[in-house]
Amino acid sequence: MSAPDPAVTDLFGLVAYGELLAFDRLAADARLAPDLRRRAALSEMAAAEIAHYRWLADRLGALGATPEAAMAPYVDALRAYHDSTEPRDWPEAVTKAYVGDAITDDFLREIAGGLDGPDRALLLDVLHDSRYAEFAAVEIRAAIEADPRMAGRLSIWARRLLGEALSQARRVAAADDRGALAALIGRDGGDVSTLLRRLTEAHTARMVAAGLNN
Amino acid sequence: MSAPDPAVTDLFGLVAYGELLAFDRLAADARLAPDLRRRAALSEMAAAEIAHYRWLADRLGALGATPEAAMAPYVDALRAYHDSTEPRDWPEAVTKAYVGDAITDDFLREIAGGLDGPDRALLLDVLHDSRYAEFAAVEIRAAIEADPRMAGRLSIWARRLLGEALSQARRVAAADDRGALAALIGRDGGDVSTLLRRLTEAHTARMVAAGLNN
Repeated sequence: MSAPDPAVTDLFGLVAYGELLAFDRLAADARLAPDLRRRAALSEMAAAEIAHYRWLADRLGALGATPEAAMAPYVDALRAYHDSTEPRDWPEAVTKAYVGDAITDDFLREIAGGLDGPDRALLLDVLHDSRYAEFAAVEIRAAIEADPRMAGRLSIWARRLLGEALSQARRVAAADDRGALAALIGRDGGDVSTLLRRLTEAHTARMVAAGLNN
Repeated sequence: MSAPDPAVTDLFGLVAYGELLAFDRLAADARLAPDLRRRAALSEMAAAEIAHYRWLADRLGALGATPEAAMAPYVDALRAYHDSTEPRDWPEAVTKAYVGDAITDDFLREIAGGLDGPDRALLLDVLHDSRYAEFAAVEIRAAIEADPRMAGRLSIWARRLLGEALSQARRVAAADDRGALAALIGRDGGDVSTLLRRLTEAHTARMVAAGLNN
């Protein structure tokens, strides 16, 4: 078997570890839910992450890569993001799920263009189901309706999530020591700073849609 | 719509909450894994529970019951089981998953006979995939091979898990204040004490198969 494309293994390692960690944190955050229905809903969002992890890990294996080795460079960068953004309550938990899923999906859509057929299709398959975003947006709006001061607090929280996500992106770029991820972004004619700017703009528009200030 | 069969709503409420809680605890226990591969494997076992939760919650809804109301009587009994069996390390975590999944499946198989067609089929559909039991058994044997003293410790742990599971069964029976679950067990010509004896015998045989003493 020829050596796997380092851009693909690096990207899939990054995304796979992101899914594994998102599962872990969403599962823990589900404990913040005010009732069993909401707890089950966030638990289902967590479970979807691990299903996607499996697809990526299987693909890495098929490409001749070891999932653990592909994930290893990104462990610290992604963990630091979650460690610095532990939700204190349910509104913060659903806001984090909403913001995190959406930024991840924007990133995946942006970068998928640089991949070949089956790998591009796989990356688009691990986008989050839109019903999860709808659930989170409903919860955010309900929290603001129950307590209008929540809008300010969650707006600050969402800006912090974006800030930490961008900081995470810089750490990921630093861990990309072969430059394979940067090259992948370049394949589609873009560069990292343009990508981050586009992610930020999309995030801002989404915050407004969920009733938060940018 | 006619009132749903209380035996079915009670049973599905019990099993649904069991899945929700198993998800939560397995997801947390996955943090005890010594590497990312094993962590992902236990996370996948957790995710399977929440998929089954969804099927049961949907069926409860279709029967005209509220999943939360159906689950409520069993929350304390099932939580007490998990609170009293928190694994301290990875071998205890996989042993708990192995023992808990198997006892649950034995219980579901025993009780399914008292249900009508679609509900019986649903209950048999939420049995655990055998590859999870195989994974756990491999991990238990590997832990014992790496440290033969582990066999004694895990044997004691497994006996404690059984004891706490039987104690949980008594608490569940006490919460079954309409007697609907007991009546369901009776439909197949059995009784609760015979059921518990059969679950214990099957557990004992499984422990021997996994290299543990009964």
